[in-house]
Amino acid sequence: MGKRVLIIGGVAGGASAAARIRRIDEFAEIVMFERGPFVSFSNCALPFHLSGIVEESENLVLMTPEVFDKQYNIDARVNHEVTAINPKEKTIVVKNLLSGEETIEAYDELVLSPGANPVLPENIKGIHSAHVFSVRNVPDIDQIKRYIDQNNVQDVVVAGAGFIGIEVAENLKKAGKNVSLIEAADQVMEPFDYDMAQILHKEIMDNDVNLVLEDAIAEIKDDCVLLTSGKEIPGQVVIMAIGVKPELTLAKAAGLEIGKTGGIKVNHHYLTSEPHIYAVGDAIETTNLITRKPTRLTLAGPAQRQARAVADHMYGKQYRNTGVIGSSVIQCFEMNAASTGLNEKDCKKEGIDYRTSYVIPKDKVGLMPNARPIYFKLIFAYPSGQILGAQCMGEGNVDKRIDIIATMITMNGNLEDLKELELSYSPMFGTAKDAVNMAALVGLNILNGEYKQVPVTEIRSLIESNAFIIDGREPDEYEEGHMINAVNIPFSEFRNRLDEIPKDQPVYVHCLSSQRSYNMVKALQMRGFDNVFNLMGSFLGLCMYEYYNDQVTGRKPVVTNYRFDLL
Amino acid sequence: MGKRVLIIGGVAGGASAAARIRRIDEFAEIVMFERGPFVSFSNCALPFHLSGIVEESENLVLMTPEVFDKQYNIDARVNHEVTAINPKEKTIVVKNLLSGEETIEAYDELVLSPGANPVLPENIKGIHSAHVFSVRNVPDIDQIKRYIDQNNVQDVVVAGAGFIGIEVAENLKKAGKNVSLIEAADQVMEPFDYDMAQILHKEIMDNDVNLVLEDAIAEIKDDCVLLTSGKEIPGQVVIMAIGVKPELTLAKAAGLEIGKTGGIKVNHHYLTSEPHIYAVGDAIETTNLITRKPTRLTLAGPAQRQARAVADHMYGKQYRNTGVIGSSVIQCFEMNAASTGLNEKDCKKEGIDYRTSYVIPKDKVGLMPNARPIYFKLIFAYPSGQILGAQCMGEGNVDKRIDIIATMITMNGNLEDLKELELSYSPMFGTAKDAVNMAALVGLNILNGEYKQVPVTEIRSLIESNAFIIDGREPDEYEEGHMINAVNIPFSEFRNRLDEIPKDQPVYVHCLSSQRSYNMVKALQMRGFDNVFNLMGSFLGLCMYEYYNDQVTGRKPVVTNYRFDLL
Repeated sequence: MGKRVLIIGGVAGGASAAARIRRIDEFAEIVMFERGPFVSFSNCALPFHLSGIVEESENLVLMTPEVFDKQYNIDARVNHEVTAINPKEKTIVVKNLLSGEETIEAYDELVLSPGANPVLPENIKGIHSAHVFSVRNVPDIDQIKRYIDQNNVQDVVVAGAGFIGIEVAENLKKAGKNVSLIEAADQVMEPFDYDMAQILHKEIMDNDVNLVLEDAIAEIKDDCVLLTSGKEIPGQVVIMAIGVKPELTLAKAAGLEIGKTGGIKVNHHYLTSEPHIYAVGDAIETTNLITRKPTRLTLAGPAQRQARAVADHMYGKQYRNTGVIGSSVIQCFEMNAASTGLNEKDCKKEGIDYRTSYVIPKDKVGLMPNARPIYFKLIFAYPSGQILGAQCMGEGNVDKRIDIIATMITMNGNLEDLKELELSYSPMFGTAKDAVNMAALVGLNILNGEYKQVPVTEIRSLIESNAFIIDGREPDEYEEGHMINAVNIPFSEFRNRLDEIPKDQPVYVHCLSSQRSYNMVKALQMRGFDNVFNLMGSFLGLCMYEYYNDQVTGRKPVVTNYRFDLL
Repeated sequence: MGKRVLIIGGVAGGASAAARIRRIDEFAEIVMFERGPFVSFSNCALPFHLSGIVEESENLVLMTPEVFDKQYNIDARVNHEVTAINPKEKTIVVKNLLSGEETIEAYDELVLSPGANPVLPENIKGIHSAHVFSVRNVPDIDQIKRYIDQNNVQDVVVAGAGFIGIEVAENLKKAGKNVSLIEAADQVMEPFDYDMAQILHKEIMDNDVNLVLEDAIAEIKDDCVLLTSGKEIPGQVVIMAIGVKPELTLAKAAGLEIGKTGGIKVNHHYLTSEPHIYAVGDAIETTNLITRKPTRLTLAGPAQRQARAVADHMYGKQYRNTGVIGSSVIQCFEMNAASTGLNEKDCKKEGIDYRTSYVIPKDKVGLMPNARPIYFKLIFAYPSGQILGAQCMGEGNVDKRIDIIATMITMNGNLEDLKELELSYSPMFGTAKDAVNMAALVGLNILNGEYKQVPVTEIRSLIESNAFIIDGREPDEYEEGHMINAVNIPFSEFRNRLDEIPKDQPVYVHCLSSQRSYNMVKALQMRGFDNVFNLMGSFLGLCMYEYYNDQVTGRKPVVTNYRFDLL
């Protein structure tokens, strides 16, 4: 009667496409093929089964083939692997993995949503051992949990400190295991810049996970792994989460064009290089809204939107492909961490001139219970002030701040827009001037040359080179911990102590979180001090930035005392 | 040396202006006059002292005159009332309320931030009794708490169910008091439409506050109040929170122009009708960004931004006055409630053609702990699809959703923008398709005429008039509670039971939260049913909408059983 639409892959992209097609065309024949035993499971929630937060792994499955059939009249065939696509004939070859039977299925429209596979480097000796796992689907997580339980495993090595690696490590820690987290880069969580990642490093260390950076697994032995550094790390289970690569087997064999980034190339309508073949999700190359360049993004939200767009285009409905900006959030023990858009690394790579602002206000009115610091970094274009990205961490509502910035980026907002943004406020939920407003105000000061600042990454070398650093906090605050060599000239006294401040050398000012030092810097400038800098992040920012590396390297701290009790 | 700037009023607007002026001009002479004993206190946090959440009332004071002096070189004079302004002479008359002494102070620039006064109707007999209070400043809240404690008051009457009234009622309830909340309108919290307000009514009732709507205090007696309805409500303390009116005494006496809305008229730069006299905060008339019309808005965020703008203009700095949209959030027991922009009432008043969408998804992935429903109503312009406003309630992160919409409104976003918005997602924080995306999708369906819907406010009359209503849930769900007269044709069976559905009369479809019924409506349309409607909010929405009035009026419910256990 209607079109015959075949869908390869039955998770986020595939299942969304199927449901949307049904809503547009009650009479289409829709068949969805899934290699695994389940369709429509929550892959993002998989790690939470390891701690028991999601108690039963079957709860991870959102829709069964039976429900697809009864509610949506969609034929969802699990344990069915598509082994070939013949674009000229408009057919696919499908193998029933249980019976071994092969059939040829004809399509009017074909949707590829094959996803991405975990990277398992062949050069790691022992990578195919029975106690090495990856996390892609429900059987994977079931297997891991069963193996750990049955073998009473105590030590687990997680390789890769991205979203999956961190969530797996945290959930195993919550399950009482000894967890080592090995990451080849010098930081966890690529979406964050190095400075912000230090906050997560501290959080991971504080929660007793053995975090090993700039190292990788060379060999997997029975109850330990050998790192390239020569270190030996105990582990009776190894979970590989160092990254994913698009599943391209079918696409390549069918002659579909592959993009430069290694994803299936699609046009504005998510059509591949062959007519009537669409592709969505983790396997495709998409476009970054900010840089206008091809990119890959393995997130569920964009996959769902792409799937919807495919269905709409199939039936001649208008659709706007706006590309992606890359918004994400993760819970890392008590610290929530969210980001959107470009980070500093991206800007440097793309040759985009940018500036940043970094503020550490409270997430709600300070006198309310549970008011906690929020670490907020804003990236904006120079000199346009256009908002490019943000990174936010804290125990509170960081996703709110990042979603506001994501909206701003999408709507092409600049610092002036963000400064004036009128957000919902009451003391339990925020501050009258929110962190995002503050970051915009600081950003405008930078853009307008109102004052100069030094990033938190450079404070250590200033301290070590004996720069003139003013601590603008009160004496009791200074006494309990301060930057080495800093001179304590409180905000409440500085106008009477100007003669203590040199005019012939740069002067660096900080306080606890840069609110007081900002005022001091402005006043000093007007009082004839031409070479004054604000230290971004101030004392709190420096403590958070330096702590992890101080601890792991044993180097001498540049503060007399970390004051995390002030948080 | 610098300008002499005088500021009348030392709370949100005044204190912000003073601090900003100091940052721009280190040499200005800044004097801030405050009639009360405190400057710079958190007026929004006042009610939280009643429950002890803010234990000491002195914690409500953010900055003392001493700190203003030492840190900012600002002369903050408390207990100083400005009694007259002489614009021609550029002077004001100030009375020291402790000594009685009067002085004349000259200004180069004057900033008015006099705020607004609680409305205390003279026609209420007993309004000036010693046990009648209002909540404007720290002494007020101190007095109330002391009076209640010293007199061991058990019954409190709160008049007015706006922000202050609800927060006072909740905090007194938390302090163990019997609280009655009297509101003249037919609903609490004016920023919300009647339908959404029902959710708050239920929450207030569930928390054992005696909520009395469409009634008002006629007389205040010693230990009770008499309402206009004749009801007598026990209360040894009465707190008046029925509204505020701008404090205009000084402005009027000085001949400053007053706007039609009853606030001090200001121009783009917040200059009053007299040169060198600015006005900010609760006392002024501002402009609504959406309607472009004058309005009044008594919120702290806008006051702070206005204060900053005043300082900027005073010193020739560029500034953009974008008007206000009115974003707010309140915690009402376990229910958070936030709103932004225009509501339906506003649109009707302004003659703006609009449509709405109403969705009740979970606030995070359903299988995660603490996933809770979020009640989200979106208002958009017809036929442009421009986003006009939103209202959101739930136990979770409602402020996030409203702040996203506030950003969209500010950036002139429409439904297409909102539909595609890429927000930070992980199962602990949201869903891959967030409530705001879903509301946009439903909105686009309405805009494009994809299907028709009936608002939750009209479901009762459909039920009572024996309309053909299909309950698309499964039989076990139906059995445990359903709309009276609804026919149970589950989503999983309807294609085999089409002959049970009439073609000659309107058909209304619902499920639990309209996700399944949306699919059914689309399918039925394609199967030749031309007159099919989706019931907005579905069973869950109806239960929330009807419950409170059912309980207080004792009328027969239109559901066989409320299923709040499903929440």
